[in-house]
Amino acid sequence: MHLKIAVLGGDGIGPEVLKQSVKCLQAVAETFGHNFTFTDGLVGAAAIKKTGSPLPDATLELCKKSDAILFGAIGALEYDNDPNARVRPEQGLLKLRKELDLFANIRPVKVFPILAPKSPLKEHIIKGTDFVIYRELLGGIYFNEKKLSEDGTKASDLCEYTEGEISRIAHMAFKAAKRRRKKLTLVDKANVLETSRLWRRVVTNIGESYPEVELNCLFIDNAAIQIILDPRQFDVILTENMFGDILNDQGSVVLGSIGLLPSASVGTKNAMFEPVHGSYPQAKGKNIANPVASILSVAMLLQHFGLFEEANAVVAAILKSFQKNIVTSDVMGSSKYGTNYVGDFIAENIVD
Amino acid sequence: MHLKIAVLGGDGIGPEVLKQSVKCLQAVAETFGHNFTFTDGLVGAAAIKKTGSPLPDATLELCKKSDAILFGAIGALEYDNDPNARVRPEQGLLKLRKELDLFANIRPVKVFPILAPKSPLKEHIIKGTDFVIYRELLGGIYFNEKKLSEDGTKASDLCEYTEGEISRIAHMAFKAAKRRRKKLTLVDKANVLETSRLWRRVVTNIGESYPEVELNCLFIDNAAIQIILDPRQFDVILTENMFGDILNDQGSVVLGSIGLLPSASVGTKNAMFEPVHGSYPQAKGKNIANPVASILSVAMLLQHFGLFEEANAVVAAILKSFQKNIVTSDVMGSSKYGTNYVGDFIAENIVD
Ligand SMILES: CC(C)[C@H](C(=O)O)[C@@H](O)C(=O)O
Ligand SMILES: CC(C)[C@H](C(=O)O)[C@@H](O)C(=O)O
Repeated sequence: MHLKIAVLGGDGIGPEVLKQSVKCLQAVAETFGHNFTFTDGLVGAAAIKKTGSPLPDATLELCKKSDAILFGAIGALEYDNDPNARVRPEQGLLKLRKELDLFANIRPVKVFPILAPKSPLKEHIIKGTDFVIYRELLGGIYFNEKKLSEDGTKASDLCEYTEGEISRIAHMAFKAAKRRRKKLTLVDKANVLETSRLWRRVVTNIGESYPEVELNCLFIDNAAIQIILDPRQFDVILTENMFGDILNDQGSVVLGSIGLLPSASVGTKNAMFEPVHGSYPQAKGKNIANPVASILSVAMLLQHFGLFEEANAVVAAILKSFQKNIVTSDVMGSSKYGTNYVGDFIAENIVD
Repeated sequence: MHLKIAVLGGDGIGPEVLKQSVKCLQAVAETFGHNFTFTDGLVGAAAIKKTGSPLPDATLELCKKSDAILFGAIGALEYDNDPNARVRPEQGLLKLRKELDLFANIRPVKVFPILAPKSPLKEHIIKGTDFVIYRELLGGIYFNEKKLSEDGTKASDLCEYTEGEISRIAHMAFKAAKRRRKKLTLVDKANVLETSRLWRRVVTNIGESYPEVELNCLFIDNAAIQIILDPRQFDVILTENMFGDILNDQGSVVLGSIGLLPSASVGTKNAMFEPVHGSYPQAKGKNIANPVASILSVAMLLQHFGLFEEANAVVAAILKSFQKNIVTSDVMGSSKYGTNYVGDFIAENIVD
């Protein structure tokens, strides 16, 4: 198969973890006889520095022409600490999502038995955890009207949803549940929010076309507890944009490291694959970032194109690295292995 | 001291846990020579059933005339599953907060060493945890404009904040930090929300009047991780309404049971004390609900009125119940002690 892949490293540790992903995709191409081509694009603070824009037109064009996008991470301390900045790295990521119509963010949370002892949670709680979060990525409070009064003393963000926005991702989530353990949990705050009540109505209606799937509703405050206290109860979680942002990151707690969580953002035409972790600027260039989340995103990319054997080979190589304790220090405090070494090991162990 | 206390049991397990709180306050009155009077008021689904309103005028009047309010819990399954209900139990609680101007919700999260082994988190992670969350309770997405289009296909909730709303709770939080370990963490989503950027500006400015307090900012997604991975890093957390709702409940995960977390909601005139847990309708009348969160709220009430010795006596009685394993089954699976028994034990052990 021929795939044109855009590589958007972004900020902080983004470029260094993506390097490992590209290595692994090259290994897959060689081993399984595919032809993957890679083109770099600028995004985030790195792009602001060079072009003034967090998402230059050339990058957007590149992404549109590509079959898939590998995304690193975005965000830099200088902007985080400056609430007055008008041009911000995150705008690049948000614009990319919008322009490519990437409406569904999919984040599987699956505990690797061999890493279970390393979780902050007790082993009997997390063992066997295997769920996936479907987060709506283009609506809600992220993309609607924002206002700041002239005198700067009043601000607002509008959270808005339409039936159409809810139903397209709901169908995806129900289909996923049908293929999996047939349980779907809608997370909302229907006791307070009008938008949540719309979500409940739309999702409940759609549920009637998926009679084999059991639908539950959970308030976000309760969900934030349940995901930690009893993560095994979940199969597919469906939620809106902001709640998804929070729940996603919580999923990483269950695994013990945010360096282990991959994600896919898919739309009608394009698809983007990225680790859940942020740019972690403090670690940039230190060769300590965990490349596994980024490499697991590669496995999601391969699955997306139906290359299941290839995806399995990548996951198998990652498991081998765990078995041999070839992991970065976020997973095992005493480890001396760096980003590159772990990436090399995994790439070299991708076999047919 | 003479205190007039309104008792609003509400729904589900609310009334049964409040009964234990009243018992303990009576024990305090007897032991320390105070005069506390109690008057019941209707609220929530229970009030809807009897009067059609989730917050009858009589209840509101009662609360306004009282020195303090003990609140149980609110919410019933029949409403949770009906997104079309126009009258909802939660409206009673929200209206009460608004009418009494209870703008600050304060929730201390302190690990009891003796219960540490019962947390889902490993002991070395939670040991020594002691932080307090200041949640803004009257602004943001809770209390601003909500819309549903005529045809029911589009909904919105407006999140709005003014400088005044932010600054009054910020001052409270900074003052608390000054009395404690001098660290304040503002939790927001300033990389996406205009309201969060306003929070950052206002709080950063106010911080200049508290030079002894160290101010940090954290994005909500990251905060949701940090609170579980390393809860000891926090001293005072300050946040807006919706993020506070989520973080509060997460605090309970650290403790191992949501049945252990008290809260106070305070305004310029009134103050209300309630357990963090919800109405848990499945447990209603079964004598299994944990009364400790509700009794710890009593300790907060006593502190609020400067009765520190009395508050300490309540906490000491609770600790004694832990030592003797006189706890409900949410804390220790094998326990056979019920709500009443635990409440009696604590009340009887309140000594000068
Ligand atoms: C960087 C930020 C805008 C983004 C989000 O909030 O969506 C990130 O947290 C994520 O989850 O991908
Ligand atoms: C019942 C609900 C409206 C309420 C809230 O969201 O504030 C509750 O979750 C709380 O935290 O007190």
